Amino acid sequence: MTRKETDERFMRLALSLGRRGMGNCWPNPAVGCVLTQGDVIVGRGWTQPGGRPHAEPTALAQAGRAAAGATAYVTLEPCAHFGKTPPCADALISAGVARMVIAATDTDPRVAGQGIARLRDAGIEVLTGVCEAEALQDLKGFFLRLAEGRPMLTLKLASSFDGKIATASGESQWITGPAARHHVHGLRHSHDAVMVGGGTARADDPSLTVRGFGVVRQPVRVVVSRRLSMPLGGNLWNTAKDVPVWLCHGPDVSEEVAEAWQAQGAELIECHLEGGGISVAGVMQALGAKGLTRVFCEGGGSLAASLLAADMVDDLVGYTAGLAIGSEGQPSLGPLGLGALSEAPRFDLVEHRRIGPDLLHRWRRRA
Amino acid sequence: MTRKETDERFMRLALSLGRRGMGNCWPNPAVGCVLTQGDVIVGRGWTQPGGRPHAEPTALAQAGRAAAGATAYVTLEPCAHFGKTPPCADALISAGVARMVIAATDTDPRVAGQGIARLRDAGIEVLTGVCEAEALQDLKGFFLRLAEGRPMLTLKLASSFDGKIATASGESQWITGPAARHHVHGLRHSHDAVMVGGGTARADDPSLTVRGFGVVRQPVRVVVSRRLSMPLGGNLWNTAKDVPVWLCHGPDVSEEVAEAWQAQGAELIECHLEGGGISVAGVMQALGAKGLTRVFCEGGGSLAASLLAADMVDDLVGYTAGLAIGSEGQPSLGPLGLGALSEAPRFDLVEHRRIGPDLLHRWRRRA
Repeated sequence: MTRKETDERFMRLALSLGRRGMGNCWPNPAVGCVLTQGDVIVGRGWTQPGGRPHAEPTALAQAGRAAAGATAYVTLEPCAHFGKTPPCADALISAGVARMVIAATDTDPRVAGQGIARLRDAGIEVLTGVCEAEALQDLKGFFLRLAEGRPMLTLKLASSFDGKIATASGESQWITGPAARHHVHGLRHSHDAVMVGGGTARADDPSLTVRGFGVVRQPVRVVVSRRLSMPLGGNLWNTAKDVPVWLCHGPDVSEEVAEAWQAQGAELIECHLEGGGISVAGVMQALGAKGLTRVFCEGGGSLAASLLAADMVDDLVGYTAGLAIGSEGQPSLGPLGLGALSEAPRFDLVEHRRIGPDLLHRWRRRA
Repeated sequence: MTRKETDERFMRLALSLGRRGMGNCWPNPAVGCVLTQGDVIVGRGWTQPGGRPHAEPTALAQAGRAAAGATAYVTLEPCAHFGKTPPCADALISAGVARMVIAATDTDPRVAGQGIARLRDAGIEVLTGVCEAEALQDLKGFFLRLAEGRPMLTLKLASSFDGKIATASGESQWITGPAARHHVHGLRHSHDAVMVGGGTARADDPSLTVRGFGVVRQPVRVVVSRRLSMPLGGNLWNTAKDVPVWLCHGPDVSEEVAEAWQAQGAELIECHLEGGGISVAGVMQALGAKGLTRVFCEGGGSLAASLLAADMVDDLVGYTAGLAIGSEGQPSLGPLGLGALSEAPRFDLVEHRRIGPDLLHRWRRRA
């Protein structure tokens, strides 16, 4: 195996370790780190729940004295500033790491090349850009928040093969099978927050928690509803003290309703209106300001369409079930207001596979 | 390789040869035949264009004297009756074939086991049921016509990922890419007829011919339109003398319009009404009576929904493009009139793959 192949192999391991922190460490990036001596792995780390410790000190602690002379693979440039923890660059230097391989450089102005500079000044050989595209994809929410102030957004569409999410009477349980539903819980788990529109909260009374994955840190539940028109007393209401509920509402919400939710433990986020409804760009900015890096939207059709129309959908996950509902059914997407087909938001296919009886397909916004 | 493995291997070859006749040999079944001496293939045949010669005499002619003592693999029980050709069973006996391996037995009352009986009486060893499920699938249209009087039906749905086939203004060219469109032409080619509703014929002015596959026998073009409301003078009108156009209309069509189409070369098929429109069950019976075994329906949404509601859709081919159109767009399916989700027509996923930028998925009616 050439050195390049070895570097890519260990970086892919670091990437997969980094993914363990996804949804679990916001506002910090979900970074992975592998320490090696030759072909032997002496330390592995990833950003811990809540965002600290970072990946590098975790791996260094595991390696102990074996860190001296080691090669460190990190998916993101190590931090060079004092935050709530001392800089990771310094920790790597003190431990005597000989060589650093980095996937993506950090665009955080507090880091931005300074981590690498500090490592090089200390005589460490630094190689960057190994598996960079994968790292940029994995850390997309972190980078988007830095660049645009918003988290990355994954939109779920689970529908019949004619694109319907419920019958005319609203019956929607279950269009897709248990395997697809379990997969949805996994996606909730890998995002910082699960988001739905007020109509879905009203119609389905969802709890939006992760189930079937053992004990996990639950994602924030976000509801976008101009007037908070969900009934008081549903699943979100009853569990608001246990798992965060954030309510994005318009300026015209009733004070009484807002206070009732607050007393119940929910956090209220006022967002401005735009074109007769809540501005989804405003919602995403507000969620970014509160530290979210990865948001998973599960509908309904109106919120999904608003997010698509505002070009806020980064990843799209489709579950297609082998049944037909017909045009009386409820559409997976509300109105997009397209003038021509050329204006349609476009996505590239990145994965497709069978999941139980259903078809899973993942798409990524066309660059 | 065991004898069972050898038999399956040659039968799969016979099946793939048989598929060459699909869409090309109606009302006869698209049968494949392989003759072997030990591991050596000495003859190959499939039902020829128009349905004659059959697969067996074609393979026997190729084998010549090498047919004596050979094993014959045939996807369907050889015929035992005098039709427009002498019985294939007799031809196999005269050629001195020693062993016959058959995938599916024929349910045609003129054959129904008599072919096998005649072979056995002549001292030929006969094994049946090898790759039977595949053969029954390939010959589904032939068997359906015998059992129910109708051809098999494949329904195409090419849509955006939210299940729309056109924008609100009717713009539909092109939602899917060139690779998917080429694939559609291949499907046209493997069916006896291509069928659309009157609305699609009116809106798209399609020619419904096979293009991009060299010189081929064109499928019959079938339009289902109660009052034949397509404009005179479009693509179908202009080519009706070159490639068959069959018009399935209601009893209330204008005589003038019907006569104009007839003069242009189209064939008129009167079908009864049911629930305010043409009975699709009636249409399918009429097409079966005219000898069609495989029909490919390309929409539009109303015809597709009527066929689904009447449980006439055997195979479903979906092409999903990576774009969103929104709820103003035209749905791929019209109304199905479901009372509950449990009444929805259900299909099993049989294939999925990328095709250009799009996702191809094939489903088969749940048994």
